[in-house]
Amino acid sequence: MDQLASRIENQDQRALARAITMIENDHPEKLKLLSDLNARKQGAHYIGITGSPGAGKSSLVDHLITLLREHDQKVAIIAVDPTSPFSGGALLGDRVRMHKHFTDEHVFIRSMATRGSLGGLARATKDAIRACDAYGFDYILIETVGVGQSELDIMKVADTTAVVLTPNSGDILQIFKAGIMEIADLFILNKADLPGVRKLKRQLKDLIHIASNDGFEPLIVETISEAQPSGFDELFDAIVKHKTYLDESQAGKHKRETQLEHEVYELIQEQLLKDIHQVIQSNEHMKQQLEQTDDPYRLANEWLLKWKDLIQRKDGSDG
Amino acid sequence: MDQLASRIENQDQRALARAITMIENDHPEKLKLLSDLNARKQGAHYIGITGSPGAGKSSLVDHLITLLREHDQKVAIIAVDPTSPFSGGALLGDRVRMHKHFTDEHVFIRSMATRGSLGGLARATKDAIRACDAYGFDYILIETVGVGQSELDIMKVADTTAVVLTPNSGDILQIFKAGIMEIADLFILNKADLPGVRKLKRQLKDLIHIASNDGFEPLIVETISEAQPSGFDELFDAIVKHKTYLDESQAGKHKRETQLEHEVYELIQEQLLKDIHQVIQSNEHMKQQLEQTDDPYRLANEWLLKWKDLIQRKDGSDG
Repeated sequence: MDQLASRIENQDQRALARAITMIENDHPEKLKLLSDLNARKQGAHYIGITGSPGAGKSSLVDHLITLLREHDQKVAIIAVDPTSPFSGGALLGDRVRMHKHFTDEHVFIRSMATRGSLGGLARATKDAIRACDAYGFDYILIETVGVGQSELDIMKVADTTAVVLTPNSGDILQIFKAGIMEIADLFILNKADLPGVRKLKRQLKDLIHIASNDGFEPLIVETISEAQPSGFDELFDAIVKHKTYLDESQAGKHKRETQLEHEVYELIQEQLLKDIHQVIQSNEHMKQQLEQTDDPYRLANEWLLKWKDLIQRKDGSDG
Repeated sequence: MDQLASRIENQDQRALARAITMIENDHPEKLKLLSDLNARKQGAHYIGITGSPGAGKSSLVDHLITLLREHDQKVAIIAVDPTSPFSGGALLGDRVRMHKHFTDEHVFIRSMATRGSLGGLARATKDAIRACDAYGFDYILIETVGVGQSELDIMKVADTTAVVLTPNSGDILQIFKAGIMEIADLFILNKADLPGVRKLKRQLKDLIHIASNDGFEPLIVETISEAQPSGFDELFDAIVKHKTYLDESQAGKHKRETQLEHEVYELIQEQLLKDIHQVIQSNEHMKQQLEQTDDPYRLANEWLLKWKDLIQRKDGSDG
């Protein structure tokens, strides 16, 4: 494990890919590996990019990679693609657009799809970001599909969260319902050549004005990602501006500390759930009870009481 | 608790509202209450309605309620509104549209927003549905905002899952990435008076044809929810058709059994996480370790090993 972490630190992309596969597959030594990687983290800037399906995130990210490479920045991209086996094909088609970066040794692209993992996609994604940080990328982009609760959770790990909106993305108030206002540091109005972008920007400014924020007013950038790309220099400036704010105000340090605390809970939760699964599946009586239950509440309560009883008989050793 | 459950069974909406508040606030006796309610469930049909923000779900649901009432069906609506305190106002505005049903004693409308709850929105929503089922509604509608992982998770509890699409909702392939194909029993093409609905329907049919399904080919219905509503009789027919399929093929029974098993795990996970939280927060040394950690993986691992050690010393009592 320590050797794998060393290889990643020495910028071995195959080692990095292998580590992420171990994370996805929930390798028994995952926590050890992640701890080794964590010790080697090099302070990459994490950028989360989210927005509704169809907002043009993939090609926007494609242009952003090009831009960051022009500034001689090393870039990793974690594309979070939920669940569907059906979507596999579509995704591959999508990634073809990024092929031009595949020969660039300072670009690393990885799709995450931990379908069925107990720990969940959000957890695995955060761990993969940690692995990328040990490699020494300057920027790590996290791209999600959709704007639901898990996507918001993934975004919590980002230093800078960019929300992509388009003039045709529907009623903006509806979008704000999804909890985006609180997490956005940067709004990217993509497809800015479509009619309605002025109106969208005006509504957005009104909403930013109404919403409270903790010291940093979210920036708004207009981009066009197709045909004649534009707005990307402004996007880069906005990212640097927010990065500088985080560095100088110590808000970034505080954000990461809070995140680390939260991760301890997440990791314990994931591991415990796995243990419980194993206990139940290896016990015929419990398995039978589970299959026959008509009342999940009673059964969960019964098993929890039993567990608490076990714990309490030995309590005090931590205190 | 048992008295509260009885009042709900006797169609007391105030008791039902109180029970859902207890669920949201994670009342200490929540599991007991839910078990009492579970024993009284009356076999409502659960309809999940999901789709991107801006697809017009709220007014569609509004018309669906009217329709179900015309068929003399009792209806509960759980509107799942994630997280944002900012969105509170917008939501209230939204619900105004449903005011016409507020005086109807056979309609119950409730927004869920368990911001910050450890168990999460998905868990609380499922529990609230259970409470509604004890009341004796014929239909329970679950409306979510957004199409992310948590929304898909909430939909797992539904008997019939309806996905709302609109002609302007962007590239349909992008939408399918979000894992929707696997869960949809029914596609509602809303705003069917907009240009592009023919194309959307054709693409959708192609995708349905490609995707595997377990015996039931998803139905497609076109609706218009604004001004001159149309397509709602067809929507009702489609719902009844899927309900009949579930009843006659036993697929519905199997779906619920799987769901019950899954819920036991969820409940245990939620409860354990709460316990861990409490243990850490009431132990000064652990709290300090947590606040100062630079390595969540090492700390989580250390605490887990300690916990396993405790458990294993007493193991065997279940086996």
